[in-house]
Amino acid sequence: MNDTEDTAPSNELGEIGLVSYADFVSREPFTFENGRIIPEFSLRYETYGHLNEARSNVILINHALTADHHCAGIHSLQDRKPGWWNNMIGPGKPIDTNRFFVVCSNCLGGCQGSTGPTSINPETGKLYQLEFPFVSIRDMVRAQKRLVDHLGVSKLYAVVGGSMGGMQVLQWGIEFPDFVGRLLPMATTSQQGSQAIAFNEVGRQAIMQDPEWLQGNYAEDGGPKVGLAIARMMAHITYLSDKGMDMKFGRRRRNEDINTVFSFDVDFEVESYLRYQGQSFINRFDANTYLYFTRALDYFDLKGQYGSLEKAFEDLKSKVLVVGFTSDWLFPPEGNREIVLAMLRAGKDASYAEIAMDFGHDSFLVESPDLYKLVRAFFSDD
Amino acid sequence: MNDTEDTAPSNELGEIGLVSYADFVSREPFTFENGRIIPEFSLRYETYGHLNEARSNVILINHALTADHHCAGIHSLQDRKPGWWNNMIGPGKPIDTNRFFVVCSNCLGGCQGSTGPTSINPETGKLYQLEFPFVSIRDMVRAQKRLVDHLGVSKLYAVVGGSMGGMQVLQWGIEFPDFVGRLLPMATTSQQGSQAIAFNEVGRQAIMQDPEWLQGNYAEDGGPKVGLAIARMMAHITYLSDKGMDMKFGRRRRNEDINTVFSFDVDFEVESYLRYQGQSFINRFDANTYLYFTRALDYFDLKGQYGSLEKAFEDLKSKVLVVGFTSDWLFPPEGNREIVLAMLRAGKDASYAEIAMDFGHDSFLVESPDLYKLVRAFFSDD
Repeated sequence: MNDTEDTAPSNELGEIGLVSYADFVSREPFTFENGRIIPEFSLRYETYGHLNEARSNVILINHALTADHHCAGIHSLQDRKPGWWNNMIGPGKPIDTNRFFVVCSNCLGGCQGSTGPTSINPETGKLYQLEFPFVSIRDMVRAQKRLVDHLGVSKLYAVVGGSMGGMQVLQWGIEFPDFVGRLLPMATTSQQGSQAIAFNEVGRQAIMQDPEWLQGNYAEDGGPKVGLAIARMMAHITYLSDKGMDMKFGRRRRNEDINTVFSFDVDFEVESYLRYQGQSFINRFDANTYLYFTRALDYFDLKGQYGSLEKAFEDLKSKVLVVGFTSDWLFPPEGNREIVLAMLRAGKDASYAEIAMDFGHDSFLVESPDLYKLVRAFFSDD
Repeated sequence: MNDTEDTAPSNELGEIGLVSYADFVSREPFTFENGRIIPEFSLRYETYGHLNEARSNVILINHALTADHHCAGIHSLQDRKPGWWNNMIGPGKPIDTNRFFVVCSNCLGGCQGSTGPTSINPETGKLYQLEFPFVSIRDMVRAQKRLVDHLGVSKLYAVVGGSMGGMQVLQWGIEFPDFVGRLLPMATTSQQGSQAIAFNEVGRQAIMQDPEWLQGNYAEDGGPKVGLAIARMMAHITYLSDKGMDMKFGRRRRNEDINTVFSFDVDFEVESYLRYQGQSFINRFDANTYLYFTRALDYFDLKGQYGSLEKAFEDLKSKVLVVGFTSDWLFPPEGNREIVLAMLRAGKDASYAEIAMDFGHDSFLVESPDLYKLVRAFFSDD
């Protein structure tokens, strides 16, 4: 078959194809980091590939702020887009479903099927809304642990994720050192910085100052759609880069005649793109979950929580590769490098790779042979 | 008096003290870049220092997006803050009012006393609001020219300004090459980039989607205050830098106990700061002017307008110093350097200085001995 490789190289990388989700229900009470308890919760999740007999081939994927459990494949043949990390996960792909059993769940507190503010509080029969306890990154990880236990897995081959997903990866290594073989966090930080908190705060204010927010008690079909769209538009800029935006949109306009157009309506292509991002977001995401998850990010601070990064990582047993991206100004390379430096100081098996890409924070989601090679190599041994 | 210098060095740099504004009314019709005409307009302005007999010592200051004509001194002894560039302008200061006659006007389209959307349209007797013509950077400069002519000045010693003010400085050199001796633009660009347009668009959407905006027809005491505050909070982040914010605010909180606080209320210091910025802004700035001025920025594009930067600058006769700041990510150093490179290619007398400061885009407004030295040296000869 070698002679067909040149003409159809993409055949080598198969697609997962049709996938469907499942719901894991944990009927044991769950105690949050802040002490609040809920009687039960469920996590919506997907799996791809096959669990081997030794149950030693499980890779857990952690999603970022606004993503979900659907990270690869399609739900129906009519789907226009596959899962959010479909370029990374599949048969023959860097996270190879011919070899690995891949698990991804919607985080606790989410709005894509897992228990969160949009779920019914079994104690009141009403929606949780702001009665839902504050969720921390550690809470997300501890909830995932129950799912993984339920799947009969006694050790994860690896935990992988970018951005908020990368924070969860770090927390997995800290919370369950014997349970995780490899950690692969990308485009992340060990401590949310001032600027990132500031952007989150503006997004939350846009939502909470929207008269439709109603202190979080909006109806299922209502809610602060304008504020949520504004929050998303702004946040979306922070996921890209100056250079990347100049390359993608530049100053391209709908109408080149400055004298007739020159208006407050959409004119530049980048405006049209952002408005689309805002509008499509409000159809798929819950405003209260946006508040909860941005707060989870803001309060993430391994240094503050453990006294120092070295202390945070002192019990770590996993092999670690942290990947930063040159154009990421939301969670810049420095903050990624700092993680590895602290791990090395603590005597851990950690390495750092920095990839030169112009796509900003979202670089980890973009096709990149450089990143693929790194991931393949990191997962090359059993 | 030398022996007192060590104990009271600040005596060397005097304060302007009490100042007051004046209104210049131009009763000639004004044609905007887009062809629209208004029958008259006024500009509110301030002057400091004394016009010399030769009328050769005039420095014109151009303000940025949300500033105004009040750039130095105080209006009353009760004022808590002096004008916005008081550290730069005054007796013995880098822009030395013992030597120079300094003029600064609120831009055409502004809301601090100059004609703009909040002014009465003499043709209808009603507020202009969105009936005001779109204002370009060139319109601002051409209106200023009338003020300077009115003051009896036949040549400006220099034009100085940062950010949107820097754009006006460049436009002054292009529009009136024989009229301007020196150009000193700082923290600016010759062409608004995609990311900056994107941030402006989110700010405009926050304003225009606010139900109180009423298509621009809000009452004088009403208006889209929530949207304007959101726009300001977001924009304010873009005026600072990641590192600067970490130094100034870090992760400092009002209450260090994560378990009891952990809320959507203000908690981090940076949140409190931003909310204050948003609230104080809505008391002093008009939402429609914000729309107009951000659009003036977005449409500023010397390259696009003149075919190339070299062409834009081909008639330039002024001596030029462009100053960029390392931590400015809104109008990064690259865009400042590019201006000088094009001027040098066009055979002009231009130089570039880059100052290492951590205050982001707002660096030009911050006390900086390095910047002061540059300004003094640039203005050292007659």
